[in-house]
Formats: sequence, structure tokens, C-alpha cells
Amino acid sequence: MNEFELIARLTRTLPTNKSVVVGPGDDCAVLDLGAPDRLFLFKTDAVVAGIHFTPDTPPEKIGRKALARALSDIAAMAGTPESALVTLGLPREFDPDWAEKVYAGLGKLARQFNVAVVGGETTTSPERSFLNIALLGHVPRGKCVLRSGAEVGDAIFVTGELGGSLAGRHLDFEPRLAEARWLTEHFQLHAMIDLSDGLAGDLRHILQASKVGAELLGPSIPITKEAKKAAKGGDTAKPALLAALTDGEDFELLFTVAGKAAVPLLDAWKKQFPDLPLTCIGKIKAEGGLILRDKNGARRFDGPGYTHFATS
Amino acid sequence: MNEFELIARLTRTLPTNKSVVVGPGDDCAVLDLGAPDRLFLFKTDAVVAGIHFTPDTPPEKIGRKALARALSDIAAMAGTPESALVTLGLPREFDPDWAEKVYAGLGKLARQFNVAVVGGETTTSPERSFLNIALLGHVPRGKCVLRSGAEVGDAIFVTGELGGSLAGRHLDFEPRLAEARWLTEHFQLHAMIDLSDGLAGDLRHILQASKVGAELLGPSIPITKEAKKAAKGGDTAKPALLAALTDGEDFELLFTVAGKAAVPLLDAWKKQFPDLPLTCIGKIKAEGGLILRDKNGARRFDGPGYTHFATS
Repeated sequence: MNEFELIARLTRTLPTNKSVVVGPGDDCAVLDLGAPDRLFLFKTDAVVAGIHFTPDTPPEKIGRKALARALSDIAAMAGTPESALVTLGLPREFDPDWAEKVYAGLGKLARQFNVAVVGGETTTSPERSFLNIALLGHVPRGKCVLRSGAEVGDAIFVTGELGGSLAGRHLDFEPRLAEARWLTEHFQLHAMIDLSDGLAGDLRHILQASKVGAELLGPSIPITKEAKKAAKGGDTAKPALLAALTDGEDFELLFTVAGKAAVPLLDAWKKQFPDLPLTCIGKIKAEGGLILRDKNGARRFDGPGYTHFATS
Repeated sequence: MNEFELIARLTRTLPTNKSVVVGPGDDCAVLDLGAPDRLFLFKTDAVVAGIHFTPDTPPEKIGRKALARALSDIAAMAGTPESALVTLGLPREFDPDWAEKVYAGLGKLARQFNVAVVGGETTTSPERSFLNIALLGHVPRGKCVLRSGAEVGDAIFVTGELGGSLAGRHLDFEPRLAEARWLTEHFQLHAMIDLSDGLAGDLRHILQASKVGAELLGPSIPITKEAKKAAKGGDTAKPALLAALTDGEDFELLFTVAGKAAVPLLDAWKKQFPDLPLTCIGKIKAEGGLILRDKNGARRFDGPGYTHFATS
């Protein structure tokens, strides 16, 4: 049973109430809490020592990464983050300076995005530290973008370049908050997700939620120089395109818009964000799962996205 | 450095913004998110295997306890819970049935209080499981009760009976949500907290936040039969009064009201909640820390409340 199968099983019969607009299964929960102009976005995310960071990771970057991951989920719904709570699990013999540096990194990123950190809990976690972030944000009514809205004929776009994040970018990535808000202010996005599990895995989330298929044009997929460099590492190296499709933790935006909006959107984007690539990598089809097309033709791509754990 | 010293150090310079009404240092954060009639309460809390539950704890009760602890914090501010998010840390070789039962216990309690569970994340935690709850609630504007409002001359009340929670009640306690809302609808509470660290420790949080002292009348403190029974366990047994003062995880309400409201409040309470004891255990003084008075006179009580961890 992998992570997604487990979550599907656990969230099958969860209680709901009238405030819930979108429950489990998207990047954030969406709540109607009685504010006249906005809906609220609610998200938690944890990083664990040895899984999401190592003993060598500078503590400032651990705090930064924990918050940035949750901010990226708010971005994926075109929202604005507002308040965060921190739960820090620490061994009994912890270094207070380490904990303080974790908070410093987290606080610096919070200030950058005007996020208030409104509480810091600690608990004992004997063998390894963990850091859980709960994040509350908001989105104007009518502007929230879900995973479930992709339509046949949509163009599929991705920001930035993909693959090789673990070489360093997973600690330094910029949550695409301003970019997502600008997109929804100027264009009608149909579906959006942030890339945490890898392009193939996360696109599959959109396809499943939207009940559609997709065809990607292999040569158009933007690949980082880190993934290209790693691909030159000999016979056992991961091909760069495979890295771009399946490496986790890119934290770029993947979204779809009507095909006729693709060219105006690209033109406007280049003026607004000249330093951040935006690439049309394929289109939404009626069915057929995820198809990868290149000079050799088209084939179904069933390779996994990154899953955070798996068990038999 | 103990838990409270660490949190004080970590939360010294956290970022804030204009939505923050009350930041770190109370039972919940209080946020103004633009709803005309209400403020929002935001809380996270984690339970960890071996610390807050054992391998013998039925998984349904682990889920129940994790949510109940956070609900108790919403009660302490006289709020109503609305939505919860769950982060479940699991070993690589976990039992899906165990995870499902954790969720079942949590879901049952959520339904009882009309709380929506709007997301379930999982992450790997190799050595031991943990369960983090993020909880969002609301409170009518003007009705939120903080730790910082106790005034000289206030009567100090506690619900239920105290001590010996680890004999079983820590897994089964009822968050005092209805009681706290009824209290604030009918009386002007000055300060309130839920008892997680023990009466002495939590009362000290109110005293520090309100910059006052308190005198408790020892014989008036309500003690559970579990604590009384444990006190008969021989020369090394914890005296029952000490257990009531310092055992953790009672999850009862501790609050203060003006002295003149004490008798009307007790009378009205007995009619409304005939099955739940409410006891006046002392009064707020101008200074002097926490004083315990009994037949032998008055002495300063400096014994610790329960702290979740300590390091040198």
C-alpha cells in the first residue's frame, strides 16, 4: 500500500460540515467561514529528519523548506497565505541553538510573504526531529483553482525547469505565490497543482480529478541543468527527461488553460515574469492516461511519480 | 532549558501581520480574518508514540485523544471548533488497519462536535508514529476569553476533578466546549485555560499572563478517586492533593470571574450541568505567586506543573 492508497482509504469516510467547499484530495482544503469576499485555504505539511532533510542540512534551510512546501500548496490554489502554526518535535537532548535557527529560517521566509507565525508548539520526538506546519490562507471567491477542472483541449503549462531538485533546489525554491495570483487575475485557469511528487505523478493527480487524459511533448519539457548534468553520470545515470518527469520536490506550478488562451498567456507572462520560464508542454485529451510523444512516436508513460513511502 | 523556556526563546521574534489579534502564548492564536461577527481560533497539537500513548493504547483512543486535546484548547477560549487537518507520521512497515482505527476514533469525536476533517497527510517517521492535529475554530467577537484577564479579587473555578488522569481519563476525557460557551454566554469570565500541564502549572500561566497572584484553599480542590486511590499506595505514593496540583492531562477548565459573580454562577451551573462538578478553589490576589492555604496555614507552592520535556 503506497501513500496515496493509504490516504484514499483513511479519508473515505471523514466527517464534514457545511463550511467545507473542498475537503481532502486537493492541494489545500477550501472553507467558507463567513467572510463576504473570500474563501479560506487550510493545509498542513511535515518534514522529518532523515527523510526531508539530513544532519548536514543547515537548520535555517530546514525551517525555510517546511514553510515553503506549505506556501507552495497555497500557491497551487492561487491563494494568499496568512497565518502559520509550527509544531517542532525534538529529541530530549536537543540543541536550543539548532531549534532557534530552524525558526529563524522559517521566520525569514514568513516575513517575505507577510505570513504571521502565530504559535510554536514543541513536543518530544526521541529519535529524530520533525517540523509540522499548519497554514491558513485565503483566496477571492470565484478565483480558487482546483485539480478537477481540466478540460479536453486545454494547454498544459509548467513554470521553471524540472528535475534534480535534491541537488539543492529543494531547500531554496521560491513558492510561486505571486505568479499564481497574477495568472488567475488575468486568465481563466482550469486546473492547477504544485509539483511535489514529480511532473508525471502530479499531472496524473489532475487527470484523475478531472477525469481526462493528457499528451506531453517530450522535447518541450524544461529540464534543469542539474538533471542534465546528473544524466551524464554513466550507465546507471537517470536520463534527464525521466528525472524531469519523476523527480520530486520541484515545487513549480503545473496548470491548464483553454487552448485558445495559450499564446496570449505566454506573451503576457514573458512581459510580467521575464526571468521565470513558462512552457507549454502538452495538451489535455479525452482519455488514455498520460501519453508521452517524442520523435519515436507516442507511448503511454506509466512510470511512477515520487511517492513518499511505500509498503507491501 | 524546559519546554516553556524554549518556546519563549523561539517565539520572541516571530513575524506578525494585521490579522493577528492574539499571537503565541495563549491556548490558541486569535485571528481577524474579515468575517463580520466572529474571530478565528487556530491551534496545532501533536501526540507521539511512547510519550502520549503506548503500544498498548487502542488506536481509536489515540486518534480520539489527539483531536480531544486540540478541542480542549478551543474550549479554553470559549470557541466552537470547525475544521481539522491530520498529519500522521508512520513507520515504513505500518499496519494500515492501525492507521484506519486511529482515523476512526478521531472521526467519531469529530462528528460528536460537528468538526469537519478536511485533509489527511501522511509522512514517514521510521521509529515511532506521531499524529499532529491542526484545528480551526471561531468565537463571537467580544466573547473570546484569554489567559491575561484575571483581576484581583476574582474567584477561581475549576470544572470536574483533578489528578490521576494517566490511569485512563487522558484517553477518554470530554472537551468542555459546551460548558465554556455556556459560561461566556451567561457570565463575564476574566481569564480561562484548559488544564493540560496540571492545576499549579496552568494557574501559573494565568498568573503570569495577568500579572497577578493567587491563593488556593487546599481542602477545596476537587480530587479524582483515581488520585485518592493511588495515594494509598504506600510510602512512595504521591499525595492526592499533590497529584491534583501537578498531574498533567486533566483537560478541565480553569477560569476566573469577579468575586461577586461567584455564587450566582455556581447556582446557575448546578441547574445547567448537574452531573459535572464546578468548584471555587481560591481567589486572585495582587501578588505573591501561587499560595496554598490549608489548616496549617499558607505557604508558597513552587512545585512544578507537568512539563512535556526538560533538558539541562
